[in-house]
Amino acid sequence: MAGELRKIGSEIFKAAGVPEDEANLVSDFLVKANLDGHDSHGVIRIPQYVKEIEEGRIKPRAEFRIIRETATSALIDGNWGFGQVVAERAMRIAIEKARAYTVGIVSVRNCNHVGRLFDYTVMAAEEGMIGLAFVNSPKIVAPYGGIDRKLGTCPISLAFPAGENFPIVIDMATSVCAEGKVRVALHKGMRLPYRCIVDKWGRLSDDPKDLYDGGALLPFGGEVGYKGFGLALSAEILGGILSGTGFSSSERFRGGNGVFMEVINVDGFMDADEFRREVDNLIRAVKSSRVMHGFKEIIIPGEIEFRTRVRRVREGIKLPDETWKRIVETARRLGLDIKSLLK
Amino acid sequence: MAGELRKIGSEIFKAAGVPEDEANLVSDFLVKANLDGHDSHGVIRIPQYVKEIEEGRIKPRAEFRIIRETATSALIDGNWGFGQVVAERAMRIAIEKARAYTVGIVSVRNCNHVGRLFDYTVMAAEEGMIGLAFVNSPKIVAPYGGIDRKLGTCPISLAFPAGENFPIVIDMATSVCAEGKVRVALHKGMRLPYRCIVDKWGRLSDDPKDLYDGGALLPFGGEVGYKGFGLALSAEILGGILSGTGFSSSERFRGGNGVFMEVINVDGFMDADEFRREVDNLIRAVKSSRVMHGFKEIIIPGEIEFRTRVRRVREGIKLPDETWKRIVETARRLGLDIKSLLK
Repeated sequence: MAGELRKIGSEIFKAAGVPEDEANLVSDFLVKANLDGHDSHGVIRIPQYVKEIEEGRIKPRAEFRIIRETATSALIDGNWGFGQVVAERAMRIAIEKARAYTVGIVSVRNCNHVGRLFDYTVMAAEEGMIGLAFVNSPKIVAPYGGIDRKLGTCPISLAFPAGENFPIVIDMATSVCAEGKVRVALHKGMRLPYRCIVDKWGRLSDDPKDLYDGGALLPFGGEVGYKGFGLALSAEILGGILSGTGFSSSERFRGGNGVFMEVINVDGFMDADEFRREVDNLIRAVKSSRVMHGFKEIIIPGEIEFRTRVRRVREGIKLPDETWKRIVETARRLGLDIKSLLK
Repeated sequence: MAGELRKIGSEIFKAAGVPEDEANLVSDFLVKANLDGHDSHGVIRIPQYVKEIEEGRIKPRAEFRIIRETATSALIDGNWGFGQVVAERAMRIAIEKARAYTVGIVSVRNCNHVGRLFDYTVMAAEEGMIGLAFVNSPKIVAPYGGIDRKLGTCPISLAFPAGENFPIVIDMATSVCAEGKVRVALHKGMRLPYRCIVDKWGRLSDDPKDLYDGGALLPFGGEVGYKGFGLALSAEILGGILSGTGFSSSERFRGGNGVFMEVINVDGFMDADEFRREVDNLIRAVKSSRVMHGFKEIIIPGEIEFRTRVRRVREGIKLPDETWKRIVETARRLGLDIKSLLK
């Protein structure tokens, strides 16, 4: 069950030298990803993070330093701590600034991979506020009309609180698909569901091997891929340039994520309860549409995650044998006996 | 030339009862759209706006009222004045708030069609700041997987200042194409370049007639159209709900645009000159990509408009006979002699 997985993750990180509060937070975020159905961002990452700690790329207990601050903004140096630890704390600052000044913006540099943006923007929604995030990431996406890797998959996220319903949470790569999905297809020996990559010669392809043989992902939008490209540029600027991280194809960029997060306090504009009721009404209105052939219903962003979480909290999380095996190995290498942890 | 067109537009609006400052501003924005190559948002609108003034939908001299205000935010009632007049003034407020408090947000209700978002976000870029806009608009777009009109084309815009280069300006409908483009294809008797609409039975179509026979536009993104859908929902909430305009399929919605605009002062995060140099570097890096078959070069959002403007300022604006004829007719009906205006 989720609680056990959370404990295992936490104990492994502690054994790797991570202080308890950081270990608990990271483990909690990984398990939340599994609960939401995003197994690629879940506990499968435990062995990888331990390796990155051992290699010195993730620095537990890193100093969280505010370089520049105003009433509404903070520029933060994460000093290569856990991405989740840095981003979670940064988001809390944005929320407090928005509570006091209607809007709060945080910008973060020297930050490892933060995982799902969903986790941070939804923190704002859980406070009845609006959360936004733009993030840049290592270059692997071609510009619209181009072939070469010049941009990150540059995810963006927006979260809005609802009343009776789950919050609306958009969390999407600005490329057609995230790199992780191509990797999964590669490992399964499958083709991609559509031609969302170019090979090294610039030919459209649905063969995941072509990406790792010098190819690139494409910005989303199909015929209007310049729209996805525009959003990727925006994330490179807001997440990368504004934070001092650098855009992903600059010499300054040293991996991880350049982060821009913003929180807007609904109170500055209208009654928060009325706002939530209106979001419920919007959800209801949109869901009342007739559906297209091949669709059963209109699904709102965040709804799949919400439903999966409800189910997995009840039924538990099933991990692939390979994932579980690697977690057990990592624990053993650190001198932990998983069975005794589960007692 | 542009100056003459601007004068004609201004005189026509004044003859229709618009005060001089409003007439000049609206005419200027329309001519700017022509200069940038967006003729659909240019002086072709003059006869339409005059008609809307006569019908009482656009109210010249409308009171611009701030309903709620904080140091960083303002909620504005446009009282159905010219959309351009209201949005331009609102954007100036956001810029001043950002100058003082790093970030400024304005939210506008009871606002007529504001035209191109480009015009407002670029105002922030011209001040060396970052501009964002999310706007909702009358329902004509189906949700992802749906058939019925439930959402507006909900454009979003982001603008970033550059150094030696033109500012980067993204201004895009969250539907595959704007409604105006379908209308143009209809008038020309042409098919759409791809199947971006559904007919009233939910079948994909490239026949513009199907849109006006009970069909709907689709959110952009193709196979990942849920991404465009997510952005449209965001614009419905930020532009529509937060301003009190209402989302486009709510009973509250009464046409025009619900507007959300934000300005971020780069100074809060880094040296503004360094920021601009980095945006230049990003443009250069992205443009260095090899191009795909069928493309000549990588085009940055805002670049086409910039180039077209340079050319049209020099060469003048060529209007279709039909557009010019209608402008002349409108002027004549208001008792103006266009020839004498051109002297």
